Amino acid sequence: MPYDRLDKDVDMMKKAGINVVRIAESTWSTMEPQEGVYDFSHIDRVLNAMHKAGINVIIGTPTYAVPTWLVKKYPDVLAITSRGQNQYGARQNMDITNPHYLEHAEKAIRKLLEHVKDHPAIIGYQVDNETKSYGTSGPNVQQQFVAYMQKKFITLDSVNRAFGLDYWSNRINNWNDFPSVNGSINASLSAEFARFQRLLVTNFLSWQAGIVREYKKPAQFITQNFDLDWRGHSYGIQSEVDHFAAAQTLDIAGIDIYHPSQDRLTGAEISFGGDITRSMKGGKNYLVIETEAQGFPQWVPYPGQLRLQAFSHLASGANMVSYWHWHSIHNSAETYWKGLLSHDLEPNAPYEEAKTIGADFARLSDHLVNLQKKNEVAMLFSNEALTGFNSFPIGENYNGILRPMYDILYRMNVGVDFIDPSSKTLEDYKLIVVPVLYAAPDSLLRRLNRFIEKGGHVVFTFRSGFSDQYVKVRDVRQPGIISEACGVRYNQFTVPEHVSLKGDPFQVGKDKNYIEKWMELLEPVTAKVLAYYDHPAWGKYAAVTENTYGKGVATYIGCLPSQAITEKILEHAVKDAGLWGPDQALKFPLIVKSGTNRLGKKIHYYFNYSAQQQQLVYPYQTGTFLLTGKKITNNNTIELPAWGFEIVEEN
Amino acid sequence: MPYDRLDKDVDMMKKAGINVVRIAESTWSTMEPQEGVYDFSHIDRVLNAMHKAGINVIIGTPTYAVPTWLVKKYPDVLAITSRGQNQYGARQNMDITNPHYLEHAEKAIRKLLEHVKDHPAIIGYQVDNETKSYGTSGPNVQQQFVAYMQKKFITLDSVNRAFGLDYWSNRINNWNDFPSVNGSINASLSAEFARFQRLLVTNFLSWQAGIVREYKKPAQFITQNFDLDWRGHSYGIQSEVDHFAAAQTLDIAGIDIYHPSQDRLTGAEISFGGDITRSMKGGKNYLVIETEAQGFPQWVPYPGQLRLQAFSHLASGANMVSYWHWHSIHNSAETYWKGLLSHDLEPNAPYEEAKTIGADFARLSDHLVNLQKKNEVAMLFSNEALTGFNSFPIGENYNGILRPMYDILYRMNVGVDFIDPSSKTLEDYKLIVVPVLYAAPDSLLRRLNRFIEKGGHVVFTFRSGFSDQYVKVRDVRQPGIISEACGVRYNQFTVPEHVSLKGDPFQVGKDKNYIEKWMELLEPVTAKVLAYYDHPAWGKYAAVTENTYGKGVATYIGCLPSQAITEKILEHAVKDAGLWGPDQALKFPLIVKSGTNRLGKKIHYYFNYSAQQQQLVYPYQTGTFLLTGKKITNNNTIELPAWGFEIVEEN
Amino acid sequence: MPYDRLDKDVDMMKKAGINVVRIAESTWSTMEPQEGVYDFSHIDRVLNAMHKAGINVIIGTPTYAVPTWLVKKYPDVLAITSRGQNQYGARQNMDITNPHYLEHAEKAIRKLLEHVKDHPAIIGYQVDNETKSYGTSGPNVQQQFVAYMQKKFITLDSVNRAFGLDYWSNRINNWNDFPSVNGSINASLSAEFARFQRLLVTNFLSWQAGIVREYKKPAQFITQNFDLDWRGHSYGIQSEVDHFAAAQTLDIAGIDIYHPSQDRLTGAEISFGGDITRSMKGGKNYLVIETEAQGFPQWVPYPGQLRLQAFSHLASGANMVSYWHWHSIHNSAETYWKGLLSHDLEPNAPYEEAKTIGADFARLSDHLVNLQKKNEVAMLFSNEALTGFNSFPIGENYNGILRPMYDILYRMNVGVDFIDPSSKTLEDYKLIVVPVLYAAPDSLLRRLNRFIEKGGHVVFTFRSGFSDQYVKVRDVRQPGIISEACGVRYNQFTVPEHVSLKGDPFQVGKDKNYIEKWMELLEPVTAKVLAYYDHPAWGKYAAVTENTYGKGVATYIGCLPSQAITEKILEHAVKDAGLWGPDQALKFPLIVKSGTNRLGKKIHYYFNYSAQQQQLVYPYQTGTFLLTGKKITNNNTIELPAWGFEIVEEN
Repeated sequence: MPYDRLDKDVDMMKKAGINVVRIAESTWSTMEPQEGVYDFSHIDRVLNAMHKAGINVIIGTPTYAVPTWLVKKYPDVLAITSRGQNQYGARQNMDITNPHYLEHAEKAIRKLLEHVKDHPAIIGYQVDNETKSYGTSGPNVQQQFVAYMQKKFITLDSVNRAFGLDYWSNRINNWNDFPSVNGSINASLSAEFARFQRLLVTNFLSWQAGIVREYKKPAQFITQNFDLDWRGHSYGIQSEVDHFAAAQTLDIAGIDIYHPSQDRLTGAEISFGGDITRSMKGGKNYLVIETEAQGFPQWVPYPGQLRLQAFSHLASGANMVSYWHWHSIHNSAETYWKGLLSHDLEPNAPYEEAKTIGADFARLSDHLVNLQKKNEVAMLFSNEALTGFNSFPIGENYNGILRPMYDILYRMNVGVDFIDPSSKTLEDYKLIVVPVLYAAPDSLLRRLNRFIEKGGHVVFTFRSGFSDQYVKVRDVRQPGIISEACGVRYNQFTVPEHVSLKGDPFQVGKDKNYIEKWMELLEPVTAKVLAYYDHPAWGKYAAVTENTYGKGVATYIGCLPSQAITEKILEHAVKDAGLWGPDQALKFPLIVKSGTNRLGKKIHYYFNYSAQQQQLVYPYQTGTFLLTGKKITNNNTIELPAWGFEIVEEN
Repeated sequence: MPYDRLDKDVDMMKKAGINVVRIAESTWSTMEPQEGVYDFSHIDRVLNAMHKAGINVIIGTPTYAVPTWLVKKYPDVLAITSRGQNQYGARQNMDITNPHYLEHAEKAIRKLLEHVKDHPAIIGYQVDNETKSYGTSGPNVQQQFVAYMQKKFITLDSVNRAFGLDYWSNRINNWNDFPSVNGSINASLSAEFARFQRLLVTNFLSWQAGIVREYKKPAQFITQNFDLDWRGHSYGIQSEVDHFAAAQTLDIAGIDIYHPSQDRLTGAEISFGGDITRSMKGGKNYLVIETEAQGFPQWVPYPGQLRLQAFSHLASGANMVSYWHWHSIHNSAETYWKGLLSHDLEPNAPYEEAKTIGADFARLSDHLVNLQKKNEVAMLFSNEALTGFNSFPIGENYNGILRPMYDILYRMNVGVDFIDPSSKTLEDYKLIVVPVLYAAPDSLLRRLNRFIEKGGHVVFTFRSGFSDQYVKVRDVRQPGIISEACGVRYNQFTVPEHVSLKGDPFQVGKDKNYIEKWMELLEPVTAKVLAYYDHPAWGKYAAVTENTYGKGVATYIGCLPSQAITEKILEHAVKDAGLWGPDQALKFPLIVKSGTNRLGKKIHYYFNYSAQQQQLVYPYQTGTFLLTGKKITNNNTIELPAWGFEIVEEN
Repeated sequence: MPYDRLDKDVDMMKKAGINVVRIAESTWSTMEPQEGVYDFSHIDRVLNAMHKAGINVIIGTPTYAVPTWLVKKYPDVLAITSRGQNQYGARQNMDITNPHYLEHAEKAIRKLLEHVKDHPAIIGYQVDNETKSYGTSGPNVQQQFVAYMQKKFITLDSVNRAFGLDYWSNRINNWNDFPSVNGSINASLSAEFARFQRLLVTNFLSWQAGIVREYKKPAQFITQNFDLDWRGHSYGIQSEVDHFAAAQTLDIAGIDIYHPSQDRLTGAEISFGGDITRSMKGGKNYLVIETEAQGFPQWVPYPGQLRLQAFSHLASGANMVSYWHWHSIHNSAETYWKGLLSHDLEPNAPYEEAKTIGADFARLSDHLVNLQKKNEVAMLFSNEALTGFNSFPIGENYNGILRPMYDILYRMNVGVDFIDPSSKTLEDYKLIVVPVLYAAPDSLLRRLNRFIEKGGHVVFTFRSGFSDQYVKVRDVRQPGIISEACGVRYNQFTVPEHVSLKGDPFQVGKDKNYIEKWMELLEPVTAKVLAYYDHPAWGKYAAVTENTYGKGVATYIGCLPSQAITEKILEHAVKDAGLWGPDQALKFPLIVKSGTNRLGKKIHYYFNYSAQQQQLVYPYQTGTFLLTGKKITNNNTIELPAWGFEIVEEN
């Protein structure tokens, strides 16, 4: 802050209905200005002011950015990555396994918690922030990796065989010879190292949570601020963290969700990030620890958008919406990542809109928090499939295939949970969508077969089942184990150029009837062919098939078709699974989200993600518009202004 | 030279009217083949031959390329930059603060000057060449930077506060902990380091000039060959040198100007570089130390262009036009950067044209040299604004905004001086154009307010006044201090997509009525709105305003509009300032330049920068065409052939 | 292999008519798992199985990928290049001059050969694989380079003069000061270093061949698997190897040829690579050691293409066609570079087609192997011209100019040999095409002059003769020495923009009448102008000229015109040289190749490189279709199906 204005800030927060703030995260150099010298005065000051104002506080441990003195004393704190050693400056530049880092981080956390633990303003703790391994792969990490390999594989023969290391003389014949993976051209080895790096994150968070747990009160929670794969905004599955594993150590999952805005605001990232985070701990509500107020200059919200976004988070199951950050920062990297307040720290248009959100949240809290959702469709993602596939991408990577499929379901108003290979709950769903499950152990593929056999529906894409968990391509006719349920096989694949589907079987029209990337030359065994390729040489091969297996149905998509075709295939699968309902009669930009609130009542959110007014016919039983208190009965018309929304609570 | 032909060269130079050559620059390894072993024979030979032929010589110190033996003995001579240590090979690869470099450079300069100082051919000295800091930032430089910081800021608290270093734990609590700036993500710190690096250049040139001054005769001058920011040719403000500061140590400013040619020859770079260089020492004439004869293959001049260029330099105030280089080089980096002679060293088309230039220069010298110019329009540039803005660019950097505005004035035939924050002469101008003055101290902004108050006109662009001299964004309603004179305020800004100005207020037509980049959501306080944005959400905000303040007028442009709109705004401002005259009735490709020669007579240059013949009506009093000696009277028509020009001296 | 199936593989190979396999190459870490510990069991097993099945074996030395233990013990084995030291992982990452590498490589080769040398399955040896210097340029190499320079140039004065090192103070005055060339900006020095690096390859192969020669039986051959410059597939002259020099040490030349397929299959790379390789040892037949079966996913062959390709190799003079590789690999870098078998290791479409190739080869072997070719057109390429030109490219490099000219001749069905400056056989040809012979000694240029004088035809492109063998531009009027034969001169050149040839002299039509890149402003001395530039400033200069010199004719192309224009110029030259025959009446996609088989009979291959059926009139004397045994007489029509071919043996 350029000058002292804590009282004014607190006053403005109160007026905006803000009732939680997060502090201390990333302030190590302020809190411990010299080794062993601590200064908590800025923390005390804020804690006291917040408490006095009735605002709750989440304390973040300060470990994701290291102080200058630590690096000066222990230069090895800075991670060595495949691009050399990091320089001081940015956050997230350290080796999270470095003993000096860990020793001093632990001391700092303990000192901080010792100091604040009894403060009544604190409702919970955040351990570190957006933690990853940051590519750390220096000698220190190499040593740990070799130990991990030795423990996991026992003999080098197993490693050499599983990873095919004879190729290009990469065979390792002595544990002492194990070379750094940084230069490896073996995707199996790189994938194992990536798995190890994700494990480092899980272990690190578990270690921090363990320390915090020694101090925290029973009513206080521990969370982490996870984030998603980034494409200029939150986009897909986080490749560097096993979210489901890492979340085990937390009491409640947290996430940051940053999304395009203005004319590009669709709500898809809010829904996607929410579904991921809710799924981390099996459907539990979660915290949106960071999302943009103004954010990047191109994200400054149009009037109404900030409200629309806030309620969209709740509609996915969030129990908190917290902005990064309160005010715009006057120096450094995020100067143009604007907060709720601009640099002048005065009320502005977003702040005025935030006040209405705060007021509505306060008024409707009982009806909105702890929304429970029960979805019948799940998407199966896998970090090991992601890593494996991204070693051999097709001009698009794993997330670039998964996200568009998710978005189709989102725009179709199909509620989705996420599951990963660790999930025990396949049977809770009627339909599972499985994008590019490239690397998977036999057991997972067999579980999917059994799921289908017992009556489940699965949509697989190309490359699913292609390799085992070590990214070794299966030596059987593809798609290997799932061939059984899919009733289809192939052993050739190529790249489409000007290829469409013969006869436009999904009736998407000439412009949209095309294969974008990849084509497996499918031959049905028992499957019904939904579409053949239209091509002089490959016209005899199938592109999309459907197979009845036991009581269930498996759809196999052997190529990356146009979005329009994928939409038709998914629509077909949703209908087949008996899941097509009144919400599907609506389509984006009309987005419907629903669930059951803690009063046990059914809630329907209707969002208009467009600049044009929209209307819809309400298909459910009599209820109440929560914002206005007005009644609504079946078949009434709901009018939604540009970027507007309504919430109906069924009686 | 592939073979000895000095006499032939001198003879050909004489025939072309060449009367100055520059030698010795960048020949350290030839002059000092081994440490302490000197060989000046090649210099003596040329000096004597030139003297005999009556050609003057500028001696360049040889320090901008280091000999192999120096690097072999002292590898630390090669600068360490943020990309690691430089390799031997290129010029400008050394650490200009390295003690071994400085020690041996000083010895070499002293030996050279001791040897040549009494030679009658020498008219002046050039210290080093195109000097910069070359990104030197190794431990040696880091130590100097910390000392500089300590001296400037006294306490780290001041640094931490001014630069906002608490963010991401960058706070420095002990001078010994000060990390290298190479990895910094703090633009304030990087900007301060950039300022320090520019200071290294000023100090280096001052140090060299001091040495040379010990030897030079009173009638001999000291110059430097400055250069400009480069975009495939000379383009904008040199970001790595404070030209105005560095020029203090020189007797006369020198510049190299390289520009597109053939169909892309506009004269804009000649005018821009000339205006910058003339302004370095307050309107004094300057030397064009390097410009292309043939240059890159795509720059080979069309017939007439070499003449047009040479006289254009004079029209901006140059007292010398010197080609890089006499002949094309047969090996190494600049083999395809052709000289006046081609590799065959024979007369060619450009040489033949150069002979006519030499003859005309000799004949008209009294009328053409020492042209004095008195401009009423200035552009204010600032190296600290440049550095700050370029840390947060908008898809275009500082020079990419400044140069097009300059070019609009150039094409409008408005004579321009450059001023920078050190300038004391704001009041000499009626109109000051201020592009993106992003970082500026309060004092400068207040001076601009006072300038307006007293009757001056200023055109500010967006982002001006946004941050202080340490790139800390001001914590008041923007545009901060200049709001007072501009009568406008904003605290939101965004990125335009399909945004135009409502009602096309500048009548540029539909195609040109658009905002290119950036838009501040301006709210007038006392200002008149010249244009509103045309956009569903932002239509209530102003884009361009004009405010009467005291006796003057401030125009504020809150966005980067199309060139056509900017041109109309500047035209409006020039007219408002009462500066629209007969020269403005002409437009590019007809370029007019004027001044007063040393006979006290008014000179008008008329250039045709096109392949089409042009004509114009002469608007001034009776005069003489200097090239032909013919008379011209008011309202006579002047015909200009393709790439042709005329010079009129008023009676 | 994921499991043991050697017998099945051998059985499938036999069925496909495969009679040679290559093994052992690149398996060092398997063969020598620890220093001095050898395990040849996998080699023995395969040798025995192959021998039993009557399949011959080529043993590759395993040296192009190093084992982990070697790098662990001697980290300096990994080459230091201009980008730093290589990491372990990839093949071809070692310093091929490193003493530890050489010592252990020699031991491994000797142990291997000692072990296998008496095995009856072995028909020959391949030394290393795709050998290059891999940019090795660390201190070890620097020392050798300085010694090489000292031996070659004796004095530094010669070096400084030849390379123009005075420029930018690069002069070297003491051998001890000789800086690494990695940072050099002197193209002469870099070119000499590139020549030295090519010499390292020649020496390395010669050293390995020498070792192998100590063990091999007289009937066994030594080969190498050379490769070509790569543009996503085999493209042009290999810049890092002097193929003609390196091939001296071999008994038979080998090559890998990878080419686009499917709709992009043209046969041009097969022909180009074949012509290069056949020319390496003066027209001797050669081995195609690697070519794709399926290869990249986008290369999966259409039905018929695998056959077309195989016979195209034979038609250029190949005596073997060997696929990389038998089966697709289940891990690592080339997982998606598919072999003849897919990952399921079962028969698939390409395998089925390969069976027909094997059967036809076996049946027709006597008629097809050892095809002798006698061409009257040669292309002169030069590694030193390539290196020199690529230091100063024109938006296209050496191969990007050579290959399209080759392709024009290929599509015109003009048989071509390659010659390089070491060739003694200029006089064997009637027409020599000389693309950008940028760097060449006087002697070579004089030989070309003499060749023309005595009646030869030469087509030179722009930049030919421009610099000497040290990339020093000649100091005479260009094109220097060849001006004599070409009767043309210039000393200016520029870059064309919207330039065509005046009056469309080659009648290619408006769309194709343009100059793509580069234009020398030619002035004829004795030459006839074939085309002038169409341009306001350069219209007086010639673009293409033809000169009668002695009994021959020299064509000079001073620019890079459109392909259509180049085709017309080459057509003109072929006709002028009296070489226009019946094969030229056909054009791509109809490709004709011919030669004499070992029965002394003339063979004509007719290939249809298109998806459309083609027909042609057979212009030669009565013969037999080899595939069907049917007769054909003069003027009969030959029908070729899509991607089909016929082979006619004249009676």
